[in-house]
Amino acid sequence: MGKGYDRMMVVQREVADIGGALSLLGWDQETYMPRRGAETRGRQLGTLAGISHTRFTSAEMGAAISEAQSETLTPDEQVNLREIARSYDRSRKISTELVKDITETSSVAIEVWREARQNNDFPAFSPWISRLVGLQKQVAEAIGYTDEPYDALLDEYEPGASTRDIAGVFETLRDPLVDLVARIRHSGVVSRADFLECEFPIADQERFGVTVSRQMGFDYDAGRLDVSPHPFCTHMGAQDVRLTTRYAPNLPTQSLFGIIHEAGHGLYEQGQDPVFEGTPRGSSVSLGIHESQSRMWENMVGRSRAFWRFFFPRFVDTFSGPMQGVSEDEFYAAINRVEPSFIRVEADEVTYNLHILLRFEIERGLFAGDIAVDDLPSVWNAKMETYLGIVPPDDRQGVLQDIHWSHGGFGYFPTYTLGNLYAAQFYRAAEQDLPNLEDHIARGELLPLRDWLREHIHRPGMTYRAGELVQKVTGTPLSASYFLNYMQRKFNALYRL
Amino acid sequence: MGKGYDRMMVVQREVADIGGALSLLGWDQETYMPRRGAETRGRQLGTLAGISHTRFTSAEMGAAISEAQSETLTPDEQVNLREIARSYDRSRKISTELVKDITETSSVAIEVWREARQNNDFPAFSPWISRLVGLQKQVAEAIGYTDEPYDALLDEYEPGASTRDIAGVFETLRDPLVDLVARIRHSGVVSRADFLECEFPIADQERFGVTVSRQMGFDYDAGRLDVSPHPFCTHMGAQDVRLTTRYAPNLPTQSLFGIIHEAGHGLYEQGQDPVFEGTPRGSSVSLGIHESQSRMWENMVGRSRAFWRFFFPRFVDTFSGPMQGVSEDEFYAAINRVEPSFIRVEADEVTYNLHILLRFEIERGLFAGDIAVDDLPSVWNAKMETYLGIVPPDDRQGVLQDIHWSHGGFGYFPTYTLGNLYAAQFYRAAEQDLPNLEDHIARGELLPLRDWLREHIHRPGMTYRAGELVQKVTGTPLSASYFLNYMQRKFNALYRL
Repeated sequence: MGKGYDRMMVVQREVADIGGALSLLGWDQETYMPRRGAETRGRQLGTLAGISHTRFTSAEMGAAISEAQSETLTPDEQVNLREIARSYDRSRKISTELVKDITETSSVAIEVWREARQNNDFPAFSPWISRLVGLQKQVAEAIGYTDEPYDALLDEYEPGASTRDIAGVFETLRDPLVDLVARIRHSGVVSRADFLECEFPIADQERFGVTVSRQMGFDYDAGRLDVSPHPFCTHMGAQDVRLTTRYAPNLPTQSLFGIIHEAGHGLYEQGQDPVFEGTPRGSSVSLGIHESQSRMWENMVGRSRAFWRFFFPRFVDTFSGPMQGVSEDEFYAAINRVEPSFIRVEADEVTYNLHILLRFEIERGLFAGDIAVDDLPSVWNAKMETYLGIVPPDDRQGVLQDIHWSHGGFGYFPTYTLGNLYAAQFYRAAEQDLPNLEDHIARGELLPLRDWLREHIHRPGMTYRAGELVQKVTGTPLSASYFLNYMQRKFNALYRL
Repeated sequence: MGKGYDRMMVVQREVADIGGALSLLGWDQETYMPRRGAETRGRQLGTLAGISHTRFTSAEMGAAISEAQSETLTPDEQVNLREIARSYDRSRKISTELVKDITETSSVAIEVWREARQNNDFPAFSPWISRLVGLQKQVAEAIGYTDEPYDALLDEYEPGASTRDIAGVFETLRDPLVDLVARIRHSGVVSRADFLECEFPIADQERFGVTVSRQMGFDYDAGRLDVSPHPFCTHMGAQDVRLTTRYAPNLPTQSLFGIIHEAGHGLYEQGQDPVFEGTPRGSSVSLGIHESQSRMWENMVGRSRAFWRFFFPRFVDTFSGPMQGVSEDEFYAAINRVEPSFIRVEADEVTYNLHILLRFEIERGLFAGDIAVDDLPSVWNAKMETYLGIVPPDDRQGVLQDIHWSHGGFGYFPTYTLGNLYAAQFYRAAEQDLPNLEDHIARGELLPLRDWLREHIHRPGMTYRAGELVQKVTGTPLSASYFLNYMQRKFNALYRL
C-alpha cells in the first residue's frame, strides 16, 4: 500500500500526464488540426477529461488524501497535499450531473452566443445567460462561500481571494482611472499612428517577435511559437511550452505585443522547478499571478521607453519601409496611445481595467441578485458611459463581445485586472532589488528581470497563495497604489498632464 | 447493465479515443515537439498506453465479450466482436510483467542499436537481439501457434496469416526475382539520372507533392502533410489523417514518391466508413493490406508511364531549371532504375522484395533455432551475395541497418512484400473492372482508381481477413504471379530483355 501521500501522488501524476495530453489535443485543435477533425477531437477530449475526473475523484484518492493528512510531510509535500485536497474537495462537491449539465448547456450556449453576437441579438442569448448563471449558482452553493456566492466562483480562478477584498482594491482604482482617462481625453495631445497601418511583412514580424522573446529568455528548445486565431500559451510540461499569435500585415504591434505577452506566460511555465513537474508545487499559483507575468512583460517592459531605446533601431532596420521618417518618440507615443473604445481585447493599458471593473461589478450584481439578465445591455452601456464616456452603438460591441459567459466562466474577468495590479507591485519590488533594471532593459538585457521573476515568483510554484506571495515578495498586501503610480508617471509624461 | 455487446463497445470506443490521443502525441513528437519535451512526452505516452491496456483487458471487458458471444448480432457487430475478442485474448495471454520487460528492454536496445550502427559494432548489439528474440519467443509461447513460434508474431501484424503459407508464396517469388535482377544487371542498359541530383527547390517539391496527392483524392480538409525525419502516415480518426515526408533539394523523387506512398496509406484511412469510427469494422485489415495501398499508388501508379504522360509536362513546368533537356523517356527510365544496393529503404521496386525475403528467412530461422544470433552478419552477407550479387562492406550497411529488431518487431518485415503482392493482385482486378484505367491515369484522372479501392478495400474495414479479402476482391487466393507478371512486363520493356 505505501504511504497515503505516495499513493495520492501516483494518482496526481497520472492525472497530470492526462492533463498534458489534453493540452496537446487543445493546442493542436487551434493550430494544425484539419477542419473535419473537430468532431472526433471533441470526443477524445471528453473521454480523456472523463477518465481524469474519475481517477482524481475516486474513493481511493479520497482515502489516500485522508491518510496523508495525518502523515509527517516536508514543506513541499504539504503544499501538494493542501492543493490536491482543495481540488479534490471542490471536485467531489460538484455532482457529476451538474458537471454534465454545465458542459452540455455551455456547448450549446457557445454556438447561440456566436450567432447572437453576429446578429446583434441579445434576447436570443439572454435565456442562456440565465441558465448558466443558475448553474453556476448551484456550483457556488455546492462549494460553499463566506460572504456571497460569487466568492465560490472567484475561488476557482484565484484561490483564496474574496470578492469583498477584491472589490475594496478595485474601488480604490476606479475613480483615479476614470479621472486619468478623462484628463487624457481633454489633454489635446494626439499622437500619430498612421505608420502602424502600413505593410509590415509577416515573415519579418515573426522573426522580430522570436528575437524579442528569445532575448526575454524564452527557451525555444523547450517551447514553440505558432499561429492561431486567438493567441494563447499552453504547456505539456515545463519543457514543452507553446505560444501562439496571429499576424496581419498592417497590425505589427498586435503580433509583437501578443508574442511578448504570451512569452511572459511562457516564462512562468518554463520557470517551474522540474523536480516538481506534474504537481501543484511545480505549478502556477492562479490566473491573476499568471496574468501579472504576461502583462508585466507586455506593458511595463514591452511598452516602456527603456525597452525601445534598445529595440527601436532594430525595429527600424527590420521594417525600414513603413518606419521611414518615424522618430523613437513618435513610435513610443503611438504604442501607448490611450483612447476609449468598445472592445476589451483591443483596449489600451489605461482603459483596459475599466472594461474589467465593469464586468466584475456586473457579475457580482448578477450573482447577488442585484442585476437582472434582461437589464444587462442597459447596465453595460450606462457603465461604459460613466467609465469611458462612450456608449456602444450595438450589443455586438457591448455586452455580447466576450466568449467567457457563454461557457459559464463567471469569476474569470477580475483576474485580468488583478494581474495588472500584481504586476505593478512586483515590478516595484524588482526595481528595488535591481537598482539598474531600467539601464539593463535599455541595453536589451532582459535576463536580470527574468531571473528575478524566476527566483521570486516562478520557482516557488504554488508554495504560497496569491495574497501571501504578494506579501512575501513585496512586503505589503495587494494595493492598487503601485499600479496607479505607474500609470500616472507614465501617462502624465506622455500626455503632458 | 445493457447488452454485453454494447458494454464491450463502450470500452472499445474509449480505448479508441485514447488511441487517437496517443496518435497525436506520437505525431507531434516527430513533427513539432520541442527538443526538451521528450522526457515528459515519454511519460505521457506510457501513462495513456497503460490506462488503455488496463481498460481493454479488464475483467469487465472480458465479461462483456463473453456475453456478446451468445447474443444475436448483425454482421457488422460480428466483425467487431470477432476482432475485439481476438485482441482481448492476445492482450490477456501476455502477462503485464512480460509487456514491461519488453518495453524496458527495447527502450535500452534502441539506444544500443543506434550506437552499434554508428560504430559498426555488431557484437555490441547482438546480446540485445538474443534477449529480444528470447522475449518474443515467450510471447509466441503465451499466445500459441500451430506450426512454429514465428506464426504467433506474424499474426500480430497480419492476422490470420501463417508462416508456411507466406513462405510458400515467397518461394515462388525468389528465383524469378533473382533472375530478373541478374538479367537487368547484364542488360547493358544504363539510364541517366544525373538531372535528379540537381537543385529542386523545396517549396516547389512540396507544392507538387500536394497537387499530386490532392489529385489522388487525399482530402486536405481531413488531413495534413508535414515534415518529419522519417516519413509516416498516422490518423486520429478517418477525418484527421496526417502524412509526413522529408525534403532535400537534390532528392526530388524521395519526397514525391514518399508523399504518394503515404497518401496511399492516408486514402485507406480516409476511406473508412465514418459510421464505424473507433471500431474494428471501421479499421484497416492488416499491415500488409495497408502497404498494398501505399505501394500500389507509389509504384504501380506513381512510377508508371501513364501517370507521367499527364504529370511530366507539369513536372517540367515546375522544375524547369534541372529538367531542361530531359525527355519523358529519360525521366521514366531514371525513376525506374534498378540497381542492387545495400540499404532496403533506398532499394528500387525490383530488388526491394529480395531485401525482405532475406529478412523473413533470417527471422524465421532465428525463431526456429536454425540461425544463431552471432552468425547473423555472415548469414546476411551470404544471402545478399546470392540474391543481389553484392556484399555489404560493413554491418552498418548490412545487418545493423534496420530499427525493427531493436524494438522486438519480429514478424513485421514480411508485410512489406505481402503489400507488393496484394497490390499487384488488386490492381489486376481493378483493371478488369475499369477497362480504361490506364487512359484515366494518363489524363491525370486518379479518382476512378481511388473510388474502386474505396469500394472494394477501404469501406469494408476489417470485415474480411487479408486472405479472405484477396479472395473476395480478386477471385483467387494470394499468388506471386500477378506481381511477377507486372514486374516482367514493366522491366523487360525498360531493360529490353
